[in-house]
Amino acid sequence: MISERLKPLMANNSAVRMMFEEGNRLRAEYGKDKVFDFSLGNPDAPVPEEISKAIKDIVDETPVMELHGYMSNAGYEDVRATIAEHLNKLHGTSFGKNNILMTVGAASALNIALKTVVNPGEEVVIFAPYFLEYNWYVNNADGVVVPCQTDENFLPDMKRLEECITEKTRAVLINTPHNPTGVVYSEEVIKGIAEVLEKKQKEYDRAIFLISDEPYRELAYDGIKVPYITKYYDNTFVVYSYSKSLSLPGDRIGYLVVPPDMEDSEFVFETVTAVNRISGAVNAPSIQQKLVARCIDSKVNLEYYDRNRKTLYNGLKECGFECVMPQGAFYLFLKSPVEDAGEFCNAAKKYNILMVNGASFKAPGYVRLAYCVSHETIENSLPAFKKLAEEYNLNTL
Amino acid sequence: MISERLKPLMANNSAVRMMFEEGNRLRAEYGKDKVFDFSLGNPDAPVPEEISKAIKDIVDETPVMELHGYMSNAGYEDVRATIAEHLNKLHGTSFGKNNILMTVGAASALNIALKTVVNPGEEVVIFAPYFLEYNWYVNNADGVVVPCQTDENFLPDMKRLEECITEKTRAVLINTPHNPTGVVYSEEVIKGIAEVLEKKQKEYDRAIFLISDEPYRELAYDGIKVPYITKYYDNTFVVYSYSKSLSLPGDRIGYLVVPPDMEDSEFVFETVTAVNRISGAVNAPSIQQKLVARCIDSKVNLEYYDRNRKTLYNGLKECGFECVMPQGAFYLFLKSPVEDAGEFCNAAKKYNILMVNGASFKAPGYVRLAYCVSHETIENSLPAFKKLAEEYNLNTL
Repeated sequence: MISERLKPLMANNSAVRMMFEEGNRLRAEYGKDKVFDFSLGNPDAPVPEEISKAIKDIVDETPVMELHGYMSNAGYEDVRATIAEHLNKLHGTSFGKNNILMTVGAASALNIALKTVVNPGEEVVIFAPYFLEYNWYVNNADGVVVPCQTDENFLPDMKRLEECITEKTRAVLINTPHNPTGVVYSEEVIKGIAEVLEKKQKEYDRAIFLISDEPYRELAYDGIKVPYITKYYDNTFVVYSYSKSLSLPGDRIGYLVVPPDMEDSEFVFETVTAVNRISGAVNAPSIQQKLVARCIDSKVNLEYYDRNRKTLYNGLKECGFECVMPQGAFYLFLKSPVEDAGEFCNAAKKYNILMVNGASFKAPGYVRLAYCVSHETIENSLPAFKKLAEEYNLNTL
Repeated sequence: MISERLKPLMANNSAVRMMFEEGNRLRAEYGKDKVFDFSLGNPDAPVPEEISKAIKDIVDETPVMELHGYMSNAGYEDVRATIAEHLNKLHGTSFGKNNILMTVGAASALNIALKTVVNPGEEVVIFAPYFLEYNWYVNNADGVVVPCQTDENFLPDMKRLEECITEKTRAVLINTPHNPTGVVYSEEVIKGIAEVLEKKQKEYDRAIFLISDEPYRELAYDGIKVPYITKYYDNTFVVYSYSKSLSLPGDRIGYLVVPPDMEDSEFVFETVTAVNRISGAVNAPSIQQKLVARCIDSKVNLEYYDRNRKTLYNGLKECGFECVMPQGAFYLFLKSPVEDAGEFCNAAKKYNILMVNGASFKAPGYVRLAYCVSHETIENSLPAFKKLAEEYNLNTL
């Protein structure tokens, strides 16, 4: 009944559902507080307190036909202007309202950017490991994914990047802070990528776009700087979401930046606006647009995730596991003590620990732990991790 | 800079923008109340009064993490159950929550249905005239549109439908009440379509889907019945939106029905749910889902459009124009008094009347008037239409 090309999607869907059901089975058998589910990347830091009042104020203060009626497919002009100014203040950019397309979250913005620039059969380079859902977004644009292996610290290797770029390359997709590894690309890394792309643009005499997926931008720890990409490379699309920065994933609100320095910026902006329409989104949901503009300075409590990060990292290191302290997002990437990370995930289930095999991110030999869970869950999980470590004879000093 | 295949989209976009700017120019020159703009299909009947309070109540009564957090990609279970029950009560169907996928409006639902079932190169039959944006939705699924000309009353011709269906046909897309003609398909018409499709399914031994786009379902006049399509044909997707029924187009909320009698219904529902995710929508906006469930019995005031319909129709007939009384939606399809409807549109502009050339709907020789405007606009436009009619020597009795 379904399109042939969706069959791999549904096969993978079954696998995800099986894991979800396994979690439910364990919770039913052992009790919710005895199961340590690190498999889901769902933001759970409390929604900022001012959000509820802001929605009610918006309803009270906005003419009803303005709040619910048709608008430009790009979104409300005042909302776009507010976001542009906010970014200018933070990053020293020079955006105006016609550089900001309001979207149904980051996933929609990514689909729009890809559809706008990728011709069927053209290539999109993505640094591996990566969030495999990107494959489907590229597929929606009839593009072809070219994975580019990162180095041992999960950072881009410029030589490999050069090798991955061909005359068919239309875009390079980056994600920083990064899912699943938690790394943040430094200014040096960004400059390195920009340099390669500038060179390749000249070589092939054609635009190569850098698409920066930044839903975790605000989740960066220890004061680490997350460089703003448009300052380093003109043909950059920035994809943003409020799902994590305000804990609003159900609301589906984000935006796409088409910077003024992009070649033919005005026409590209008109095109992403039209693509927003034909993609079926039409426009970002109206109430949520007004909401993020009104709460432009709001943020979730970073401390919520940071505390989890430190407790989990220190606990795992004490057990003898090998991992790198994540710099951003809410994921910790752990090296499996055995080659087969699937076997390791299965062993963990005996202790009611649920993790995702790194193979789901093109990183065999690793597992991903999403630490967007209660701090209690983290603390209670540590004795279980200790037993798991003992099973592998770690930390046997 | 943009993908080659989007170039026709942007060419058409320029044409629409030129018309929009022409309207603005006329309004600036003659004053807003002296311009009769029938070009835009934007619902303008007042949003039902209870909507504003409902949003505030939802904020007050829903746990904040439930109202903004992740949910099933299909939408909230309670919302889906409420809508299923509502449809069962109205239409005698047997839907449950796993037959209702909450979507980012009807355009998103249509894209999802098409992507789910259409293999690249397969054909989608659409009765002409039709809303040309459908071309882009089918294109997004790499399908091919096959227009099927309707009869002189804009109703499906079963013989032509049979001829349009080939072994490559995957779906037939219908829209009733209809944009741009205002016709409503009777039970007899629906039965006729179902009969042809049943026969062709057998002939080619393969599912052919009927996709029913119904954003105007509630806008049907004189008590005319709009048959519920799943009762006549099992492999039907119903696409619905609250943009018109509650005047909430900016909110982006609608749903897709996968009826229990569809072949392999459960798996198809899982697939549309996954396609909702990979399309970038992920889920329908959370507040709006809760809103339509809470206001399940709300409706815009049909009288608002009905009064416009009658005044405009009677006024145009009195002028000597040839048109059919629309039965639903908020469009009136007028026969151009000269073969070139573009010339007629241009002539109308002299009297500050803005209409859309039927060529934009594959209906040369006609123009579309969207009567979702204030009643005052309709009344004030009639003397202008009279002058226009005189220019064409109509009603010279």
